[in-house]
Amino acid sequence: MTDMKTTGDDGYFVEERSAETVIARMRDCDDPRLREIMAVVTRKLHEAVKEIEPTEEEWMKAIHFLTEVGQICNEWRQEWILFSDILGVSMLVDAINHRKPSGASESTVLGPFHVADAPEMPMGANICLDGKGEDMVVTGRILDTDGVPVAGARIDVWQANDEGFYDVQQKGIQPDFNLRGVFVTGEDGRYWFRATKPKYYPIPDDGPVGQLLRAMGRHPYRPAHLHYIVSAEGFTTLVTHIFDPDDPYIRSDAVFGVKESLLADFQRVEDAKKAGDLGFAGDWFWSVNHDFVLAR
Amino acid sequence: MTDMKTTGDDGYFVEERSAETVIARMRDCDDPRLREIMAVVTRKLHEAVKEIEPTEEEWMKAIHFLTEVGQICNEWRQEWILFSDILGVSMLVDAINHRKPSGASESTVLGPFHVADAPEMPMGANICLDGKGEDMVVTGRILDTDGVPVAGARIDVWQANDEGFYDVQQKGIQPDFNLRGVFVTGEDGRYWFRATKPKYYPIPDDGPVGQLLRAMGRHPYRPAHLHYIVSAEGFTTLVTHIFDPDDPYIRSDAVFGVKESLLADFQRVEDAKKAGDLGFAGDWFWSVNHDFVLAR
Repeated sequence: MTDMKTTGDDGYFVEERSAETVIARMRDCDDPRLREIMAVVTRKLHEAVKEIEPTEEEWMKAIHFLTEVGQICNEWRQEWILFSDILGVSMLVDAINHRKPSGASESTVLGPFHVADAPEMPMGANICLDGKGEDMVVTGRILDTDGVPVAGARIDVWQANDEGFYDVQQKGIQPDFNLRGVFVTGEDGRYWFRATKPKYYPIPDDGPVGQLLRAMGRHPYRPAHLHYIVSAEGFTTLVTHIFDPDDPYIRSDAVFGVKESLLADFQRVEDAKKAGDLGFAGDWFWSVNHDFVLAR
Repeated sequence: MTDMKTTGDDGYFVEERSAETVIARMRDCDDPRLREIMAVVTRKLHEAVKEIEPTEEEWMKAIHFLTEVGQICNEWRQEWILFSDILGVSMLVDAINHRKPSGASESTVLGPFHVADAPEMPMGANICLDGKGEDMVVTGRILDTDGVPVAGARIDVWQANDEGFYDVQQKGIQPDFNLRGVFVTGEDGRYWFRATKPKYYPIPDDGPVGQLLRAMGRHPYRPAHLHYIVSAEGFTTLVTHIFDPDDPYIRSDAVFGVKESLLADFQRVEDAKKAGDLGFAGDWFWSVNHDFVLAR
């Protein structure tokens, strides 16, 4: 039963060199990347424990919390991603993996509500299928970093409705594919579509992560935004949002998704004629204009 | 719906000050200890992510692993404690909470197999109820840090059998309370009992933590040991083990429980007369002598 992995002497456990002893135990690991990752994890974890000096009760509370985060997960709920989100880790991983050349649009988190098979629509279509909420027209251009329009760019957009819910959260209440659409640019690189003004909404806060948020004195809201995936041949795909800068939660997004460059210009247009021309029933509407710059 | 927690400006997310932005969001937290803990956790977590620079695939693998660690937990299995154990965190928390005055016996992890209602036995009793394994006699003294014997000390001992299983892991195979007993010292502070030589055994390795151990090139074994809880009025309760220094895994305990001072002296005694006097059927036995020093 004795195997080869018993050889070697890292010394017995002592508090002073606790992390080194654990890390040295990986000498037989044949996956250098895993070894590197686990060495950093072990070192930072031991540094954290030494700085916090948890009581045994606090350690046990942490064990129970971490257990609950996993236990509430199921095929449609991922509490560990939520935990990563509220600690800013998801945004940090996004930032590390999507460093952009100067001038290119910045990325943000994908979020859990993207649907792969949203319908392609003619430019200018209204993605709001139930007529609810305040009318909005969204316009802009897809450009390269030299300012040249990108033809044939695919713009996949989705958003929450005026009450802060995505269609997939309200099946049977909202029409299927409500507030989703795919548009493809022509030679001018321009896009436009009609929609409804989105509203802020809470991330799922009835689980352990929601409890932690409350204990930390934080709210669960994400400021109003539209999601975009912009892709074009020869360019890096851009996963991002644009945000309403006047949203009450714009400076305290529960998942830290807001970046300064993602604030869009939401203009309230009081013009009955223009509203009529756009097919809106009211005499005013919201107008949002935002360009995206793709990196090669 | 807008609440007071939207005030304040920590700046939008930027990679360079990612942890500071997350930590600043706790300004409304009214639990200073939680705030301190979460600030350290956030800072160390962001440091780790920045050093590792995980790909998005690696991040997702981590999410899945952490989820599985929680999902396999149930009323009799605690995979998060196991994860804490194999990263040396349990031993570190134990060390931080049980710093001892010079000369006092060192502590180690309690482990999951303690039973609260083990029977009190007369000094010298044999706790091996099924006669299996190699005979062993354990002797020693309970002393204070001045070397004075402690009378009325309660010694709660438990151990695995000669195949590496505790009674509670083999209900119906081992007798109830096999290899467990409580002894109380007299004026001389001495204790002794008879038992069987314990064997090394694996921690539960059929879950995600076992998979990680294998991927890290590590084995799941704990070297042979006896568990002790020694308590006496006016002294700090001591939770510890004594180990067989000749065990093949003595320098690579999967949970880092071994400390130099916990190595006991396991002597093989070839003396048929003494064996007979101790009531052992064979003509040799193991003899272990270990004193414990309690801190006031």
